Amino acid sequence: MSASAIGYGVPVARWEPGARERLSAAALELVDEQGFDDTTTAQVAARAGLSERTFFRHFADKREALFAGGDRFEAAYVDAVVAAAPGASPWEVLVAGLAGGATFFSEERREHSRRRDRVISSHPALRERELLKLAALAGSVAAAMRERGIAEPTATLAAESCVTVFRIAFERWLRPDETRDLVTLQDEVLARLAELPPGSGQPM
Amino acid sequence: MSASAIGYGVPVARWEPGARERLSAAALELVDEQGFDDTTTAQVAARAGLSERTFFRHFADKREALFAGGDRFEAAYVDAVVAAAPGASPWEVLVAGLAGGATFFSEERREHSRRRDRVISSHPALRERELLKLAALAGSVAAAMRERGIAEPTATLAAESCVTVFRIAFERWLRPDETRDLVTLQDEVLARLAELPPGSGQPM
Repeated sequence: MSASAIGYGVPVARWEPGARERLSAAALELVDEQGFDDTTTAQVAARAGLSERTFFRHFADKREALFAGGDRFEAAYVDAVVAAAPGASPWEVLVAGLAGGATFFSEERREHSRRRDRVISSHPALRERELLKLAALAGSVAAAMRERGIAEPTATLAAESCVTVFRIAFERWLRPDETRDLVTLQDEVLARLAELPPGSGQPM
Repeated sequence: MSASAIGYGVPVARWEPGARERLSAAALELVDEQGFDDTTTAQVAARAGLSERTFFRHFADKREALFAGGDRFEAAYVDAVVAAAPGASPWEVLVAGLAGGATFFSEERREHSRRRDRVISSHPALRERELLKLAALAGSVAAAMRERGIAEPTATLAAESCVTVFRIAFERWLRPDETRDLVTLQDEVLARLAELPPGSGQPM
């Protein structure tokens, strides 16, 4: 579809390079500074140097601006599940998914992630949205596992375990005094998960 | 606290025996018949033979009326985790929690659960609320595990696995042609979960 077909009836050249990223960064800054309830979409647009109309071409509301990277985050997991070696066991695919997801969270990203976590934790509506995002991630990972021929209920069990391990390790990665990388922390949690079933090791 | 202390300033004797249950049943019926968006709190109250004021003494909105049993549901899991044998392994506590939760879903309840599931699945706001309920359940089970002395991250891994196994087995229990009880279905899913870690059995 051409730009003129999309923009028919409204002036063209509305697309601003990097607008989505600027709006998302501005939303994070403002909510961190003054709280979610006191931040308006007009303020976010102004901070990004853009109009409020531009804001609404990218996001339905201020909450969504804080979840802008969700698609790439999910793709990092799903792509790794799809790319795992042929014949890999469900556990190996789970581990591959975790490794793929961890590439999204480089050391340079840690401070940004800490700030975002502080913002998300500050408001129930944001915590809910984050939970729903992780539930959707588990659903997508399970679908990618089934695509590989992994049967249910194993696909869903492995996908949910993948997201739980990530969530626990990610929380640790964000701690102020934590310096280890996410892969190391995920490996520690994976080792505890492997011990859970009977006959697999230490009881506690 | 006495009834007069609670009711100070408003007429007493507002409490209707079974009002909460009647309102919840009326909400389920009406939403099943005419959809969530087209159902009002006034209609729910009328169907239950109660006033709208009584409705709002029990529930904040129509959505909450569909989640009335949530507290007892969660208590069934948490009580079973607390009551598990001293020295039980995290896996044994997980299994005990699942067995406790299953007591909530007797055969007589299956048709009601199918109807409720149909209603919840019909609207995104209800599906979100259900996901948040299960996330809260996992948090409560993890807290009960930590109370038993089970360390993190094992407590959270076991609690999340407990909820995932329940969710998968419960979905199967609701299928129109399914006649096996929830405990049997949970045991099948647990067997697949036990096989997931490396060296624990079949690869797929």
